[in-house]
Amino acid sequence: MSFTFALEATAGAARAGTLTLPHGTVPTPAFMPVGTHGVVRGLSAGDVRGTGARIILGNTYHLHLRPGESIVGDMGGLHRFTGWDRPMLTDSGGFQVFSLEQLRTISESGVEFRSHVDGTWRRLTPERATEIQWDLGADIAMAFDHVVPGGAPRELAEEGMERTLRWLGRCREEHERLAEGRGGAPASQTLWPIIQGGTYDDLRLRSLEGVLARGPWTGIAIGGLSVGEPKPVMHRLLELLEPELPREVPRYLMGVGFPADLLEGIARGVDLFDCVAATRNGRHGTAWLPTGRINVRGAALKGSTEPLDPECDCEACTTVSRGYLRHLFVVEDMLGLRLVSIHNVRFLVRLGEQARARILDGTFDHWRREWLERHRSRAVPAEP
Amino acid sequence: MSFTFALEATAGAARAGTLTLPHGTVPTPAFMPVGTHGVVRGLSAGDVRGTGARIILGNTYHLHLRPGESIVGDMGGLHRFTGWDRPMLTDSGGFQVFSLEQLRTISESGVEFRSHVDGTWRRLTPERATEIQWDLGADIAMAFDHVVPGGAPRELAEEGMERTLRWLGRCREEHERLAEGRGGAPASQTLWPIIQGGTYDDLRLRSLEGVLARGPWTGIAIGGLSVGEPKPVMHRLLELLEPELPREVPRYLMGVGFPADLLEGIARGVDLFDCVAATRNGRHGTAWLPTGRINVRGAALKGSTEPLDPECDCEACTTVSRGYLRHLFVVEDMLGLRLVSIHNVRFLVRLGEQARARILDGTFDHWRREWLERHRSRAVPAEP
Repeated sequence: MSFTFALEATAGAARAGTLTLPHGTVPTPAFMPVGTHGVVRGLSAGDVRGTGARIILGNTYHLHLRPGESIVGDMGGLHRFTGWDRPMLTDSGGFQVFSLEQLRTISESGVEFRSHVDGTWRRLTPERATEIQWDLGADIAMAFDHVVPGGAPRELAEEGMERTLRWLGRCREEHERLAEGRGGAPASQTLWPIIQGGTYDDLRLRSLEGVLARGPWTGIAIGGLSVGEPKPVMHRLLELLEPELPREVPRYLMGVGFPADLLEGIARGVDLFDCVAATRNGRHGTAWLPTGRINVRGAALKGSTEPLDPECDCEACTTVSRGYLRHLFVVEDMLGLRLVSIHNVRFLVRLGEQARARILDGTFDHWRREWLERHRSRAVPAEP
Repeated sequence: MSFTFALEATAGAARAGTLTLPHGTVPTPAFMPVGTHGVVRGLSAGDVRGTGARIILGNTYHLHLRPGESIVGDMGGLHRFTGWDRPMLTDSGGFQVFSLEQLRTISESGVEFRSHVDGTWRRLTPERATEIQWDLGADIAMAFDHVVPGGAPRELAEEGMERTLRWLGRCREEHERLAEGRGGAPASQTLWPIIQGGTYDDLRLRSLEGVLARGPWTGIAIGGLSVGEPKPVMHRLLELLEPELPREVPRYLMGVGFPADLLEGIARGVDLFDCVAATRNGRHGTAWLPTGRINVRGAALKGSTEPLDPECDCEACTTVSRGYLRHLFVVEDMLGLRLVSIHNVRFLVRLGEQARARILDGTFDHWRREWLERHRSRAVPAEP
């Protein structure tokens, strides 16, 4: 009973629920900050707890290279290693190794790739990705998928989708083998499948069908979106999949997490999101606001005693001024990067909290429209 | 009555006291972290409060250049600007402008120097340094001194010392003029003089005599030490000055703050210290330990689940392992720099707290000897 999902309310396709995992509960919809190397860039576990995040993500590819899953395993797993005691999810490494375009070869058995750190050749297969994630010990492991580039032609998208289904079977077998090794002890990790199929409706539906045929699952992810396709295409595919997805498990839209994308995804039935944009933008001095976004380096902030976002309750907005934040970027002090990262993560976590409250009280649709209108109203667009 | 010092106990020359300032009290002996640009490098005001620091230092030279004292003043002063609500001290900029060897010309009226930020020529005089510090609004302002290089020949040391005395008179006049502008409101800032004179005993004594002749003062600083002279020379000069210094005001040894230097200074009657070594070493991955120091990047820490310093109560030592800290440095995440900086600052703050407790309970001298012996016992020396 460690992996349950209780659906509490809906508003159209939007859902409010509670995901229960070995390390705690996650009220949904929810944004998951990305802890690439076992750390949400620049933030301590306490900083991330302070943003209200209930679950974070770790990258299997990066953790495999440094410090290596055996080190993490020997140190007691990713939770003990990082000091993060709430739920955690690891991706499978698929997205990263398929991004190493010049540095990898793909076959049915898996992917050979060169480490971007030391140039050594390594190998990731469905079985290895599953074993590595088992050693890392997150609450949720992801199946190893064949990721194709955004805008991939139909044949390539189909090949990746079909291979992802075959690999899903191998991941599942390996995961069951590892779980049996616990000798009847309760499972500490669950495995989630990933729907692929590029921008092709029929491939997406076949992918979902294939995933369900290999189930049951405690959660289902949608991969290969937000990789350059127009927003309306992503929205169409989410709307296509939504009625076919089982209601009783959470849906995770991978790699999506600009503020407006979060709300649009929630409106289309998505429960979980992750994205590095919050911390990446934070390090570059771009802060999200209810009214769009702001460049913290901008001369307009010089001398301002106003908070970054008067509606926000994060550490940056409650302890320092816009003028001080700008000063930190001007003198290149890393505290500025940290504070704006904290703000952006809190901004997305709070957006999930707000959406959940609005779904529960029946005002979601109206609120979402007004929120998006305000967020997109400024001359400076809210998204790149 | 805003600037008082109560001497509570002594142990030989060592002193335990309490300094009362407009923004709070400072139990002494105490280490003051350096907030170069209005920020202790990489740390939030909350981080610094978490180290137990009761007073921090700001650099007038850096704050004059960025963001400029008028911006800080308009934003309500350095306390409101930075969010640090405890006592603060600003240096006069003398140390920085005299360090710009190729970029400054000295005359009796003051120093012309080129900004290291934008190359513009600027001018710092005793009056300007005093005005800038008044605008910054720290509890304690320092007199503008003529700083000579470490190892300066006698004539240069004498010239700098004599000029520092003449400038002290001008700083005092300017400070009184500014204070009178408050129209009888209680003073919010006090001015402290600086003893110079290089490594020459007679010059140091003449400097002190000149300082006292221009008094009274609420505190007295000793400058121009820890600039390359052998440790025994610094110790000899401190021992020379100690009996001549007034007992009733705190003594501040400028720029000194490696752990052993702190204890040696305390034993010779010093009450206050500042140094960037804690945060600079922290950013470079060198952590101070009771047994010496350690390179956090070192392979020996790989996989270690031990705390950095099991005797320490700082955020780094109580929340993460040596293995995780090493990993943060390997993947170049700024959280590592922050955590080791916090540890080193806490290490010095705690050393002040420990020394104070030992002076109060009469065990200081024995404890200090044992502490230094243990700190210096390792093959890796504790200091560069």
